[in-house]
Amino acid sequence: MEKTTSYLHNQPVLFGKKFMWDLCVGKVKAMADLTPLFNVKSVAIIGASNKPGKIGNVIVKNIIESGFAGKIFPINPKETEIEGLPCYSSVSQAPDKIDLAVVCVPAKFCPDVMEECGKTGIKYAVVITAGFKEVGPEGLELEKKLLFICKKYGIRMVGPNCVGIMDTHIPINTSFAAGFPVQGDIAFISQSGAMLVSIMDWAKSIGLGFSRVISLGNKADLNEADFIDAMADDPFTKVILCYIEDVHNGKYFLEAASRAARKKPVIVLKSGTSQAGALAASSHTGALAGSDLAYETAFTQAGILRARSMTELFDLATCFSYQPLPKGDRVAIVTNAGGPGIVASDAIEEARLTMARFDKETLDALRANLPAEANIYNPVDVIGDARADRYAFALEAVLKDPHVDSVVVLVCPTAVTDPENIAQRIIELHRKYPEKPLLTAYMGGMTLAKGVKILTRAKIPVFTFPEPAIRSIAGMVNYVRRMESRVEGEEIRYDDINPDKVKAIFYDVIRDRRSVLLGSEAAAVAEAYGISAAPVKLAISPEEAVALAESIGYPVVLKVASPKIMHKTDVGGVKIGLNNAEDVRNGFIEILENVQRYLPNVVPYGIEVSKMMPKGTELIVGMTRDMQFGPLIAFGLGGIYVNLLKDVSFRLAKGITHAEIAAMIAETKASTLLRGYRGEQPADMMSLIDMVARAAKLILDFEEISEMDINPVFAYPDGYSALDIKITIEL
Amino acid sequence: MEKTTSYLHNQPVLFGKKFMWDLCVGKVKAMADLTPLFNVKSVAIIGASNKPGKIGNVIVKNIIESGFAGKIFPINPKETEIEGLPCYSSVSQAPDKIDLAVVCVPAKFCPDVMEECGKTGIKYAVVITAGFKEVGPEGLELEKKLLFICKKYGIRMVGPNCVGIMDTHIPINTSFAAGFPVQGDIAFISQSGAMLVSIMDWAKSIGLGFSRVISLGNKADLNEADFIDAMADDPFTKVILCYIEDVHNGKYFLEAASRAARKKPVIVLKSGTSQAGALAASSHTGALAGSDLAYETAFTQAGILRARSMTELFDLATCFSYQPLPKGDRVAIVTNAGGPGIVASDAIEEARLTMARFDKETLDALRANLPAEANIYNPVDVIGDARADRYAFALEAVLKDPHVDSVVVLVCPTAVTDPENIAQRIIELHRKYPEKPLLTAYMGGMTLAKGVKILTRAKIPVFTFPEPAIRSIAGMVNYVRRMESRVEGEEIRYDDINPDKVKAIFYDVIRDRRSVLLGSEAAAVAEAYGISAAPVKLAISPEEAVALAESIGYPVVLKVASPKIMHKTDVGGVKIGLNNAEDVRNGFIEILENVQRYLPNVVPYGIEVSKMMPKGTELIVGMTRDMQFGPLIAFGLGGIYVNLLKDVSFRLAKGITHAEIAAMIAETKASTLLRGYRGEQPADMMSLIDMVARAAKLILDFEEISEMDINPVFAYPDGYSALDIKITIEL
Repeated sequence: MEKTTSYLHNQPVLFGKKFMWDLCVGKVKAMADLTPLFNVKSVAIIGASNKPGKIGNVIVKNIIESGFAGKIFPINPKETEIEGLPCYSSVSQAPDKIDLAVVCVPAKFCPDVMEECGKTGIKYAVVITAGFKEVGPEGLELEKKLLFICKKYGIRMVGPNCVGIMDTHIPINTSFAAGFPVQGDIAFISQSGAMLVSIMDWAKSIGLGFSRVISLGNKADLNEADFIDAMADDPFTKVILCYIEDVHNGKYFLEAASRAARKKPVIVLKSGTSQAGALAASSHTGALAGSDLAYETAFTQAGILRARSMTELFDLATCFSYQPLPKGDRVAIVTNAGGPGIVASDAIEEARLTMARFDKETLDALRANLPAEANIYNPVDVIGDARADRYAFALEAVLKDPHVDSVVVLVCPTAVTDPENIAQRIIELHRKYPEKPLLTAYMGGMTLAKGVKILTRAKIPVFTFPEPAIRSIAGMVNYVRRMESRVEGEEIRYDDINPDKVKAIFYDVIRDRRSVLLGSEAAAVAEAYGISAAPVKLAISPEEAVALAESIGYPVVLKVASPKIMHKTDVGGVKIGLNNAEDVRNGFIEILENVQRYLPNVVPYGIEVSKMMPKGTELIVGMTRDMQFGPLIAFGLGGIYVNLLKDVSFRLAKGITHAEIAAMIAETKASTLLRGYRGEQPADMMSLIDMVARAAKLILDFEEISEMDINPVFAYPDGYSALDIKITIEL
Repeated sequence: MEKTTSYLHNQPVLFGKKFMWDLCVGKVKAMADLTPLFNVKSVAIIGASNKPGKIGNVIVKNIIESGFAGKIFPINPKETEIEGLPCYSSVSQAPDKIDLAVVCVPAKFCPDVMEECGKTGIKYAVVITAGFKEVGPEGLELEKKLLFICKKYGIRMVGPNCVGIMDTHIPINTSFAAGFPVQGDIAFISQSGAMLVSIMDWAKSIGLGFSRVISLGNKADLNEADFIDAMADDPFTKVILCYIEDVHNGKYFLEAASRAARKKPVIVLKSGTSQAGALAASSHTGALAGSDLAYETAFTQAGILRARSMTELFDLATCFSYQPLPKGDRVAIVTNAGGPGIVASDAIEEARLTMARFDKETLDALRANLPAEANIYNPVDVIGDARADRYAFALEAVLKDPHVDSVVVLVCPTAVTDPENIAQRIIELHRKYPEKPLLTAYMGGMTLAKGVKILTRAKIPVFTFPEPAIRSIAGMVNYVRRMESRVEGEEIRYDDINPDKVKAIFYDVIRDRRSVLLGSEAAAVAEAYGISAAPVKLAISPEEAVALAESIGYPVVLKVASPKIMHKTDVGGVKIGLNNAEDVRNGFIEILENVQRYLPNVVPYGIEVSKMMPKGTELIVGMTRDMQFGPLIAFGLGGIYVNLLKDVSFRLAKGITHAEIAAMIAETKASTLLRGYRGEQPADMMSLIDMVARAAKLILDFEEISEMDINPVFAYPDGYSALDIKITIEL
């Protein structure tokens, strides 16, 4: 049943399914090897120009100005020299091997140019040119043609319709953006070129440094997964930052992000989460945004930190880039005023961090050396007349304290405050205690501007208000927690499942021209995967019903079996609590008579006889499918109020582990009930985890299951029973 | 039962309860008249000094430099001239009437100084001096002494322990803070002096203007309610901003804030919401922070906008100050890049605003005048090569559109972007269409700095990223919505309640040395207030039980009546579904035997006979009390999972209206059930609203009710029944 996924996701038909299949999938390595791209020694600019302001001119200049030490080959058949460099009529004329081609000729010429690149043995290309997928069907055709050529020659392509790549470590700037970032350790991968240019401009004004900056453009070939994967191993990159509107391929993205997140923080701003945003996203790049639930779940499972706004994205980036990871969640505050200390304390609680409680030694030292009016407990208030010395004393005391994991220093301008000296002392102490994150909020404007500059230059994050500083620490702590709690449990294997039995049942359903399974069929499917369903059998005569009831055991429930009857109770199609053969026989006949009266045109399949199970804690296990990330399994509080209470958590079914399911259950309020609420016995958690795992396996194995709802599942102290199973299939 | 509240809340005992009562409460006007304070024509600085750097010197200089046009009288017995002004030995020596005394002598001299102020007929004082309540019990004594003198002479005092007042319209700066704000229309009232100084410094750097800036200090006399009340009527103030850690008096605060919010936005940052924050707050000002639930509820009911962070507080302040109120929630975006447009669209959805849908005329105009690659639907993408003209065209088109209520312009720096010209055109169009809020996000750094300055000077809010712009619009829309949906319903009056009956029952309980009411007593209390309780009567013999059952009607429930038995079912103290006299008689005896066996030392009061009510939608009605804001009434989903599901909403009981209760019910998921869920009949909403109103009246009338829980209330299509009523009283 497993489907292999094409590199040309969504467009396998163009070149004939079979052909593209052989060419692009299966045996091809999932992630591209981008080492050479980040080590280019020679670059050709195809479409280079002498006209100032033209992109082909800007790029040549940008490469020269970036300090690129390798060879630069401008390509333009009409020129002999560009910006002082000899110009060649085509890449084949260049006197040396070319590592990278930057293409900025008009779109219609791109395929020919790429063909030539291929013949010359060029292996990497950045296509700046626009006018492809983003302009409509014709552009899409052109883009596919271009990609086909790349595939033929094994060229890995960035773009088309991108701003280019900036690399501060080679260094090289193949983009047409004005300005080149400061060298740093943040890799930024952006699906929006404009966003990238904006960010570079803004980052420069606050001195934030980058290692590699990649504009993804239309992602025809190389996409976010390839670059996340490459940046995971990049020694110059400490933090990976992404702005994406969709992912090209959910599976690769998850693989790359999971692997990367184990090595360094991966922070993603995923836009297009709203319906309005998704609409804008698709009118903008032609990308079909996946449902946000799937993204949210996938990000959590991969260990990605999701930024909720651009501000948060860059606050986090700054802190991860500048500061060490905290060892725990205990935060100390040093302030020269009470109010901001309270604001910071509130933010700590809201972010689910812990106010550090100092040890005796720290308190004694603070008590002995701070004025009597100072507050020696966290938040430490060195009060308004504190100069740099007092600040430094308090700060060192809390930095030394083993019960403190990170520190935020708040500075308000008072008559005696000396923001520059305080900044200097903060920097010294950070050097002395480099293992603890140290952030600051300089609360003011002009008065503090010099101090802010000193801190920024020394890579101490400075905020204007306390809350974003605390939120950034929370982000760092969350990353550390996720990495620590990460369970590398193995994918679960089953020896006792019977897929053939499921196929046989589905075959009957299809032969019957149905898509909804009967209750008895659904129960049999569940049983085939080792899910303990309440016994349900189909009877087609009163005698058979009695026999089934006798074999199942009383009391039983009778229910009319027909895919055409949605509300069985309303037509008198259900009888509950039947305790003997007589009641079953009468019930059978009565139901048929009721149905005949209400729905004279419906001929039921028969009557389902099911065991009336003792009541347990009502749960629901369900599913949904996402185009990008495959099936998601759902678990939550069951019963008739499911939609009202919405107490449901989700996980990607693919690769799910028992530990992950346990975490998933723990997220719900239902778990409080399962642990034994108000004196009741706790439920058998292991059996429930096993059940969810089996349900996940079932929906993974059978892509044709479009809907599955098990509601209720009754949880008992010694097991569970899946009562009402609804399965719909779509081939 | 109504208690009047002292101005000296929490400290009425000091001067003898009776005395303070007569002096300060009841007949004294709730809000202070502060008109003269904001129109002072002469000021005395008591403790003025010639020594540079001393507060008494800084204040004199600040008053002079602020451009104060009135008379300035430095007071210091040791000097004859200060900063070029004649100095007087005491206020009584000043040659003219003094409107305001600014006091900065050491704390121990403050009472004498104030006594002299009183004798001289000074009516307003700002006490800068610290060393009062905030330093401990001794300081508190001194503060009370000072307040007593103020009361004696009718002096209204700001502080002590405050930074002072800055007024840009008189103008006068009685503070010791460096710098004086730009004139503007924001009033800022701050409980933290340091915060105030920080904010002034920061605001100056971005050109944000203020009307009046008040440092509350210890709030011994004048507090946030007085100033909010005064600012409500201040013609120079368009927005009222507060930073508070607690409120002095909940009732006055609510009155003032509700009245002010009807006239202009009141935006409050309330810190000390966390336990950690409350701890910091109390170690800082000795203030006891109220529970956050009560604050949240009170703010909502008063129509206050609550800022969640300092950034949000000032983003909102800027937008309210600079821009008109939006007429609705439909937002249009004009951008020169797709990515930021998507980010903005997401933010619009998250903030529950609406993406404006343009009318045909607008779309036609955009289609005809923008390039083919542009997006003419919202967000309008004028694309990267847009210059000021194209921006202006698109902006005017959407500003003109009657389906647009507010507009956000996003600008990314591209090769051709001209941020200054775009800014100029934005300003022109804002002047042409002044009735629609117009915000901008200039996404970049140095490249855009000049444009940002131009916009800021013209009072167009500029953000670096789109999200905070959208959030600010959401704040404005929320204010407008609240003001529109505000129901000025009248306080409910009841002619059919019987407080004497309740008193009689409580008296029995107290005489019995109990605090928990029996079920039958609680039901009787509810009935006395017109709440329809399921019939419950106490029987002390099997015969009586049968007689009661016959009068109530079968089926009935028997329950042992004893305050000492908490879990009645566990000791065999409950029998349900009894259908005849025989069963009732046997049940009675059996229960007594069971109790005798399990708890031989407990002598029950008897057995409660109650009607077994048909099952309805299970609700809970409960309460909690807040020191500041009085009783809160709670409504939500009932049953045994109340604590698990936490589907409960709260309102202050005081002044509650039927409309407010309807809104309160609508906030819960329970309301979905009540409207008729999954084909069930809707519940009788009017009877439920009446019931909540009566419960609110009950807890308002009887402060001694410390706990009340009605769970479940069964809601029916034709009424309701309060089943299990628990009431605890504390005298």
